[in-house]
Amino acid sequence: MRPTMKDVASAAGVALKTVSRVVNGEPGVHPATAERVRAAIERLGYSRNESAAVLRRGTTATVGLVIEDVADPFYSGLSRAVEDVVIEHGWLLLSGSSSEEPLRERELVETFCARRVDGLIVVPAGDDHTYLRPELEAGTPVVFADRPPGAGIDVDTVLADNLGGAGEAIRHLMGHGHRRIAFLGDDPGIFTAAERLNGYRQALGGLFDQRLVSMRPPSLEGVRADLARMFALDDPPSALFTGNGRYTVTTLRALAGRRVALVGFDDFELADLLTPGVSVVAQDPAWMGRVAAELLFRRLRGDAGPPEHIELPVRLIARGSGELPPPY
Amino acid sequence: MRPTMKDVASAAGVALKTVSRVVNGEPGVHPATAERVRAAIERLGYSRNESAAVLRRGTTATVGLVIEDVADPFYSGLSRAVEDVVIEHGWLLLSGSSSEEPLRERELVETFCARRVDGLIVVPAGDDHTYLRPELEAGTPVVFADRPPGAGIDVDTVLADNLGGAGEAIRHLMGHGHRRIAFLGDDPGIFTAAERLNGYRQALGGLFDQRLVSMRPPSLEGVRADLARMFALDDPPSALFTGNGRYTVTTLRALAGRRVALVGFDDFELADLLTPGVSVVAQDPAWMGRVAAELLFRRLRGDAGPPEHIELPVRLIARGSGELPPPY
Repeated sequence: MRPTMKDVASAAGVALKTVSRVVNGEPGVHPATAERVRAAIERLGYSRNESAAVLRRGTTATVGLVIEDVADPFYSGLSRAVEDVVIEHGWLLLSGSSSEEPLRERELVETFCARRVDGLIVVPAGDDHTYLRPELEAGTPVVFADRPPGAGIDVDTVLADNLGGAGEAIRHLMGHGHRRIAFLGDDPGIFTAAERLNGYRQALGGLFDQRLVSMRPPSLEGVRADLARMFALDDPPSALFTGNGRYTVTTLRALAGRRVALVGFDDFELADLLTPGVSVVAQDPAWMGRVAAELLFRRLRGDAGPPEHIELPVRLIARGSGELPPPY
Repeated sequence: MRPTMKDVASAAGVALKTVSRVVNGEPGVHPATAERVRAAIERLGYSRNESAAVLRRGTTATVGLVIEDVADPFYSGLSRAVEDVVIEHGWLLLSGSSSEEPLRERELVETFCARRVDGLIVVPAGDDHTYLRPELEAGTPVVFADRPPGAGIDVDTVLADNLGGAGEAIRHLMGHGHRRIAFLGDDPGIFTAAERLNGYRQALGGLFDQRLVSMRPPSLEGVRADLARMFALDDPPSALFTGNGRYTVTTLRALAGRRVALVGFDDFELADLLTPGVSVVAQDPAWMGRVAAELLFRRLRGDAGPPEHIELPVRLIARGSGELPPPY
């Protein structure tokens, strides 16, 4: 049903090879003939099967991106930046969300590899990436973003300064008089959550108290229960440090207007419009996406240097919530 | 460098056809032989070139999605839902953002078509889609979501009830005593913006006043200037209707705490945490994405019925800002 190159050749009254030359922009075709071929292409609605063409060239001009969830603003910002770099290069982006499930991450990566993507950017959900070895040995460049690969795999990584950012948040709260600072974060199996816990713990030093730490996937009921338990202590927290954007929003909702000092990891769109404004340690997901994609294209152009481990700085934005004093 | 099926055959000491049978799950291979082949596959790290295989079958098992901007939460929600349906079917998703540029929309669609995607879901930026005709005639199903195609193209569409939703917002504000209601929305060349203006205008009837309408891409400076101009009128607005999620957030920021009744089109994550809570006409982008993707897969399974035009209902969520009374 779809018109072929042969149909174009018949319609234009030329040889197949002539059509092929025109389509591929090769020289050696008389301008008037080329014009006739182009008119036939237009008339028949012929379009080249680029998938077949790229496969013949041994490349698919496609990048695969695995993120946690494109509906999470952090990852949609990262995703958009990767897409922009990919499209600037005239390539295409295949993308998928792992939903924090290691098996889904692996299935997505393996499906992308079976489709012969030329490069991969992965925000891993799991911590075993030995399944990538054959792909890496076949020369496919892979960049890990936001979280590093599991043991035994050394590839390019682009991470944020999670440890330093968490430390900065805690020192900011301590600078405003807080000594009882709780940490509410995601499952400690997630690299970024564990790093932020480390930063929190190191900055608190002797003030660290395990009873003020809660780590599990964010849910309104869970955060409500954790806050109720912590606020019922004899020495309750006077400040909270929340481990990511989703956690900050869930915690603000669970607080239901209760005034308590708070600094969150990750900025979010309306942080400045809440009362008080929400102080955050901000990452730049678009920057992370762009750096990861540009590194990938550098590898695709042949840069065979040792794996690079890039750490992007984060910055504290004080908007009010982190500057509330302790109530006592 | 990458191991081929031939390498596997040599390593396992079997014929190429035998490896092909094992890889494709075809019968006629002795279990012990199949085991030897699988061991060789594992040892060599062989993986099938699915891109070549799907092309031979005349399909790429790929869906192309063009949206306005994946970093906009409306489209990232829609995108995630499309992705889920595509992956449930074991297919892959190619996606791209048009940035509201008709040329970029067309380039993305044409690139996806040249790669022979089996189906397309398009949130159009432009209003001329005659370029899709050859693809439609070749039998590629296309579903338009959020906005319909331009004149002369009749394909499946999944839209929200923009007109009805805008009317509901205006009647809600009028029910709370407002007669001077401004509309701040995106460029009227965008279908959804124009429909919401129509709904606003119809619901206001004789109260409509062109001086209370501003339509252009959202920017903080632009909204600030428009609000200043409107509030300086002898009969200023006592309520605002904002035309989409981005516009609502920009307007809230431009208002800088000034209390004025407001209903926005589109819900957004922190609408309930602002003071007052922001009343909205909510669409469900994930629902729209799922409906569009399921319709596409129905077409891909062979449903050749006439184009369907689905309109999804919207609902008003009253949270406080739409219930503020006029100040006089």
